[in-house]
Amino acid sequence: MSPLKSWFNIPHGSHFSLANIPFGIISTASSTSPRVAVAVGDHALDLDAFAANNGFSALSTIQPHQAVFSQPSLNSFAALGRPVHSVVRKYIQSVFAEDTPYPEVLKTNSALQKQALLPLKEVKYHLPFKIGDYTDFFAGYHHAYHCGVMFRGPEDALQPNYKHLPVGYHGRASSVVVSGTPIHRPQGQFLENPADGKKVPIFSQCRKLDFELELGAFVCTPNEQGKPVSIDEAENNLFGIVMMNDWSARDIQAWEYVPLGPFNAKNFGTSISPWVVLIEALEPFKVAGIENDAETLPYLKHKSKENVFDIQLQVDLKTSAGNSATLAKTSGRNLMWSFSQMLTHHSITGCNLQPGDLLGSGTISGTVMAERGSMLEQSDNGKNSVKIADEERKFLQDGDEVTFTGVCGADDDALVGFGQCTGRILPAVDLGL
Amino acid sequence: MSPLKSWFNIPHGSHFSLANIPFGIISTASSTSPRVAVAVGDHALDLDAFAANNGFSALSTIQPHQAVFSQPSLNSFAALGRPVHSVVRKYIQSVFAEDTPYPEVLKTNSALQKQALLPLKEVKYHLPFKIGDYTDFFAGYHHAYHCGVMFRGPEDALQPNYKHLPVGYHGRASSVVVSGTPIHRPQGQFLENPADGKKVPIFSQCRKLDFELELGAFVCTPNEQGKPVSIDEAENNLFGIVMMNDWSARDIQAWEYVPLGPFNAKNFGTSISPWVVLIEALEPFKVAGIENDAETLPYLKHKSKENVFDIQLQVDLKTSAGNSATLAKTSGRNLMWSFSQMLTHHSITGCNLQPGDLLGSGTISGTVMAERGSMLEQSDNGKNSVKIADEERKFLQDGDEVTFTGVCGADDDALVGFGQCTGRILPAVDLGL
Repeated sequence: MSPLKSWFNIPHGSHFSLANIPFGIISTASSTSPRVAVAVGDHALDLDAFAANNGFSALSTIQPHQAVFSQPSLNSFAALGRPVHSVVRKYIQSVFAEDTPYPEVLKTNSALQKQALLPLKEVKYHLPFKIGDYTDFFAGYHHAYHCGVMFRGPEDALQPNYKHLPVGYHGRASSVVVSGTPIHRPQGQFLENPADGKKVPIFSQCRKLDFELELGAFVCTPNEQGKPVSIDEAENNLFGIVMMNDWSARDIQAWEYVPLGPFNAKNFGTSISPWVVLIEALEPFKVAGIENDAETLPYLKHKSKENVFDIQLQVDLKTSAGNSATLAKTSGRNLMWSFSQMLTHHSITGCNLQPGDLLGSGTISGTVMAERGSMLEQSDNGKNSVKIADEERKFLQDGDEVTFTGVCGADDDALVGFGQCTGRILPAVDLGL
Repeated sequence: MSPLKSWFNIPHGSHFSLANIPFGIISTASSTSPRVAVAVGDHALDLDAFAANNGFSALSTIQPHQAVFSQPSLNSFAALGRPVHSVVRKYIQSVFAEDTPYPEVLKTNSALQKQALLPLKEVKYHLPFKIGDYTDFFAGYHHAYHCGVMFRGPEDALQPNYKHLPVGYHGRASSVVVSGTPIHRPQGQFLENPADGKKVPIFSQCRKLDFELELGAFVCTPNEQGKPVSIDEAENNLFGIVMMNDWSARDIQAWEYVPLGPFNAKNFGTSISPWVVLIEALEPFKVAGIENDAETLPYLKHKSKENVFDIQLQVDLKTSAGNSATLAKTSGRNLMWSFSQMLTHHSITGCNLQPGDLLGSGTISGTVMAERGSMLEQSDNGKNSVKIADEERKFLQDGDEVTFTGVCGADDDALVGFGQCTGRILPAVDLGL
């Protein structure tokens, strides 16, 4: 399929080609109310302004719902359901198409172009959804395996349940922030020398601060409490995907996690990329995930093999001294469980999911060091150092900035990208303790 | 202190004496919008109607905020902060006092009495808060110890971290329901015969469905992300307390919980009592919790010993055949960690808590069988049966109704009670699988 050509200047290599049309929440210095936008090339199309100026005049189905574009979150738009998202995406593609059937809407309407097409450089991002509940999974097979080898050896690397269900836990919704928000180094309780046998914890700044390279999926369609979502329906309940950094305090985690799982180690902040890429836009990039040699119970069984997305992911670290390095390159194909399987499993007991709920994939790593999506794996839990020019890292230091980049496709004029998810570590807050 | 006398008929033994004044969200058949009320004796005082009819005319501080009483949740009222809750509670006490200084407000205003004083029997309860995040702790010492003995033996009953921090995990907020809402038996994945060594799970209806007797605390005052709440401030950030049933699927839990903690075993439903009892009303019932013989780190150290509440708790089970029995009587004093310690620990990494966030205590059990707050403990994980007239139970059966009752005090005219938290088990939904 040849790329969609536009009358609008979309730079080669842009993550936001016409094949994409991701949704987000933006504001600007001159108009500070957060509102809905899509990204096109180096610009955001402000859908609130677009709707208010008859932008949707040729799309009668969306007109009764136009108020959703003035909302400070995507929740209301998402709740309209995937058929509506698809119609809006395709309409916007057609508005930007070189041979648009609606030239008067934007192509020849320079007043609206000026008002609604905002350079991304001038845009402030907000959290795309008001997140009700956030659940984090552990579906990255190689990450689960590496961590298991690290802590339990290769014989017991994977827990007995790993290949039978997408292991997950409830995360903290309130502290999910949009890319660009700095994160204070957390403080908490942990064992100073876990190996010395003394189980006397200290209170301290985290010394093993880490990132986790993940994907996150947002729910659009709710299910009632008591009514599970079947594996065949699950993907229809998903709005789209973001990149996610599940910041982790490894020393706190190691001490607290028995027997109820990670808590303080993860609750201080989770960063997501600002643009949510619709599942529909990712459809061409579906691939088979990591093969599961265990028998999958029928309630989790997909009809086809291609259920994860070949999103090319990259992790870069930039130090406060200005040095930087690419730490890892990997792909969304390294998941053993799909977001549909996560959603179905999540709901199988009758748990209700709601528009704006966020599902995290778990850390995505490949098989070799250059593909590993956390410092825990990169440094073998602090045993080795990672080189960043003439600096070294075992875990993150204050001032370090971690940036994820994600993109699908090889045609520079038809990329479906996620932009970046970035966050910098600020020093711990002085508690006067 | 002699009990506050009222011109209004508050029955002896009522949980809702003038010493209480708990807050909730109600509606009625004739007025279906959920709104704020307080309970007084056998009646709810509809604060929306009360405010609209000059009920707060003598309380100038609340007048600019009266719109909070028309809200369908307590979030906005709670966010006004504890000094405001206190003023409102004391004002309502004075309005109902025999020698009220404001007789014209309600005592001699029969029109408003008729409109705003609603018999509890005619009231429909709604969830008191829109819950942003729900966190469940494990602070019931005897429960933690019993369960540890059951699964690991008496030597390793408590994990090494147990006495050093309030162990907790993030729970599922979307499926918290108000007392009276029935709960479908969950279905899910578990090992049929965990002891046989074969790690091949089945998909089935839960066979080990359980209740957990807990208390829950609601947050009123938020803390910013990155800014922990000190132990001395923590209680000021708490609105009030409810009873909570953390329904649990033990077979699902045993299979899924390694290494990230309980997930599907708990996410299908959590029930809370409708009336939230303010911390201020519970103040006279503060007692020392279970003594902790480990050194508590300074950030978690209370200045005084009395930090938990002597709430007398009772669990009753009624079967569909109409048999019933009291399974357990215990007290809130069986906690080793206070809600203030839970909140401070929760925030110590910088995690932000918000008005309406819910903290669960973990199961509250005493030392002996007649004090144990779960079937897991009552039946020793299904080894024994509990007698209910001529019926027997190891875990819950369809049609079983579990009711918690909680009350503070001994003076029948000054009880500070929670009413009931009840829920009945419905059969599993037919999934056609």
